[in-house]
Amino acid sequence: MQRRRLISNTALAVTACAVGGPAIAQVNPTIRWRMASSYPNSLQTLHGTAEIVCNRVRESTGGKFDITLHAAGQILPALGVVDALQAGSIECGYSAGAFYIGKDPAFAFDCAIPFGMNVRQMNAWMTMGDGLKLTREFLNEYGIINFPGGNTGAQMAGWYRKEIKSVADLKGLKMRISGLGGVVLSRLGVVAQNLPAGDIYPALEKGTIDAAEFVGPYDDERLGLNKIAKFYYTPSFWEAGAQQSFYVNTKAWNALPKEYQSIFESACAEGQNYQTAAYDALNPPAMKRLIGAGVQLRVLPRPILDAGYKAAHELYAEYSAKNAKWKKIYDNFIKFRDDSVGWLRVAEGSYDNYMAQRK
Amino acid sequence: MQRRRLISNTALAVTACAVGGPAIAQVNPTIRWRMASSYPNSLQTLHGTAEIVCNRVRESTGGKFDITLHAAGQILPALGVVDALQAGSIECGYSAGAFYIGKDPAFAFDCAIPFGMNVRQMNAWMTMGDGLKLTREFLNEYGIINFPGGNTGAQMAGWYRKEIKSVADLKGLKMRISGLGGVVLSRLGVVAQNLPAGDIYPALEKGTIDAAEFVGPYDDERLGLNKIAKFYYTPSFWEAGAQQSFYVNTKAWNALPKEYQSIFESACAEGQNYQTAAYDALNPPAMKRLIGAGVQLRVLPRPILDAGYKAAHELYAEYSAKNAKWKKIYDNFIKFRDDSVGWLRVAEGSYDNYMAQRK
Repeated sequence: MQRRRLISNTALAVTACAVGGPAIAQVNPTIRWRMASSYPNSLQTLHGTAEIVCNRVRESTGGKFDITLHAAGQILPALGVVDALQAGSIECGYSAGAFYIGKDPAFAFDCAIPFGMNVRQMNAWMTMGDGLKLTREFLNEYGIINFPGGNTGAQMAGWYRKEIKSVADLKGLKMRISGLGGVVLSRLGVVAQNLPAGDIYPALEKGTIDAAEFVGPYDDERLGLNKIAKFYYTPSFWEAGAQQSFYVNTKAWNALPKEYQSIFESACAEGQNYQTAAYDALNPPAMKRLIGAGVQLRVLPRPILDAGYKAAHELYAEYSAKNAKWKKIYDNFIKFRDDSVGWLRVAEGSYDNYMAQRK
Repeated sequence: MQRRRLISNTALAVTACAVGGPAIAQVNPTIRWRMASSYPNSLQTLHGTAEIVCNRVRESTGGKFDITLHAAGQILPALGVVDALQAGSIECGYSAGAFYIGKDPAFAFDCAIPFGMNVRQMNAWMTMGDGLKLTREFLNEYGIINFPGGNTGAQMAGWYRKEIKSVADLKGLKMRISGLGGVVLSRLGVVAQNLPAGDIYPALEKGTIDAAEFVGPYDDERLGLNKIAKFYYTPSFWEAGAQQSFYVNTKAWNALPKEYQSIFESACAEGQNYQTAAYDALNPPAMKRLIGAGVQLRVLPRPILDAGYKAAHELYAEYSAKNAKWKKIYDNFIKFRDDSVGWLRVAEGSYDNYMAQRK
């Protein structure tokens, strides 16, 4: 249908021009969009991905489809992307579903849920499973269409002023944690706060919060979190592969020429590929620097993981009982996760274990 | 500079239109290319990736940059891609560097080397490390430019008629194995043969070979290998993340309009993202079917991995001593591998281990 419209526009142009003689081949229009990001421009990982996508779209269209990227706070509050898209005040944004669980917990499926999928599983579910179809169906009610555009890989469990030795140590802990991880940890006694990246350092410095998780070594070092809290825990059981997404207002999307849609979609998949690679290249040296600077690396005690696992799955049962949109996506997601955990151990896991032992 | 040229072309078009003369809006030319693949069209993973890339390029250019994909054997022998590109008889191909180590073992760096990087590491090295720069410098001498366009993830160690319990069991084993894995295994007594995908089943059926590795559950099942040999070993220490590449004749590349170059490059990165997702979605159910059909899953004994590790690194030392091109890439590759093995255990590995235990 979109295609037909373009063809008829072209025909019109040819007719109009024919009277003057000149031959006009089909030329797509110049289109300018604004993209609001939830992230500061200091992060080569998250912000860098959005830059790569905007640059690619510009380059592939000879500058005619021009998306201007705005870092968090420039034209919108960091976490205001979904509201602005619904209002139609921006055409597109770069953000993560986890920030919007206050609207509906099902937003988390477009990013990560505690004890969810790692980056390999998430990419497979989105690309080849039902992930994209189901999250698009859900987001369509908000007038938004999502394009997976990055994944952090497994994250760290964050920065703590004091060691966390038992579930009891979480009691009353004021912590920055976004998404459903915050809901799960609050059931273990944590006082969870969903702060955007740029607000974490000041809150931790002032003592408004006692602990904070963001992503991993590179991003966390850039935000300066290591300067305030010295215990660095692993793993984040709440974000084992946090997908980032490009969100587009559905009307703006439908008004694009088909070629521009194709170019944008391809660029987002390129961003998806770039971001995990960026983390995997930037995190190892960052971790070395952090350890060298005295950061104390710790593993979350198993009873905390077990308590988190129990609390998470109780929460999921409650959501499933009362929220049909949640249940529809959750059932599909969990089946995909469970089907693939075993396989990834067979070749991938056995090779990685051998290499780790050799090292 | 390119940007400026485009803008001035547009200005010219507007001016020309105003005088009523023949307005030439900026229109990129129609270009047709042929892409020869090393793979049969039965594989949704490998062939499917090339299809996705060709379709994307066509869609993003409104059909004007049209690449026709030819499966292995249609216009070229499966492993004739590099020769044809050098001769200029095709514009592009889809293949894997591992097939061309007979020309120079350094071709393997564009795919995989034994005890090399997993898919996460390889993508990081290619995208953010020096991988792309170094492999392009090497391939430039062949008049070829490479675009990473897929990765199988960690592979299986293949199909064997008899159990492999010790290094001694490898002695005299006639086996299909491609790339440097074949060179390493030959040092352990294997008689290695580099057969293209389509020739593996007949060779195994006739008894020309006793064992064969290809990729993993999905691909191997499609090739029918499970019908002939019932012992299925893991892991492939020779292909822990085998990258596939789009190879383009450099002259053909340089003749492309800049927008088409950009669209092609983006599409290849999309293919890169797609392929691992496809394997991760298709392998788990394939493995279940294989096990259900009586396939015997086995882990390669540790002494075989250790012997392989030793033989591989001896081989690398020999190559490094006599082949400067090899050494330049190898030193960079190994440093990147060693720097990242540790980090991937910290968050990714600890999360994956927990989930595997829960299951």
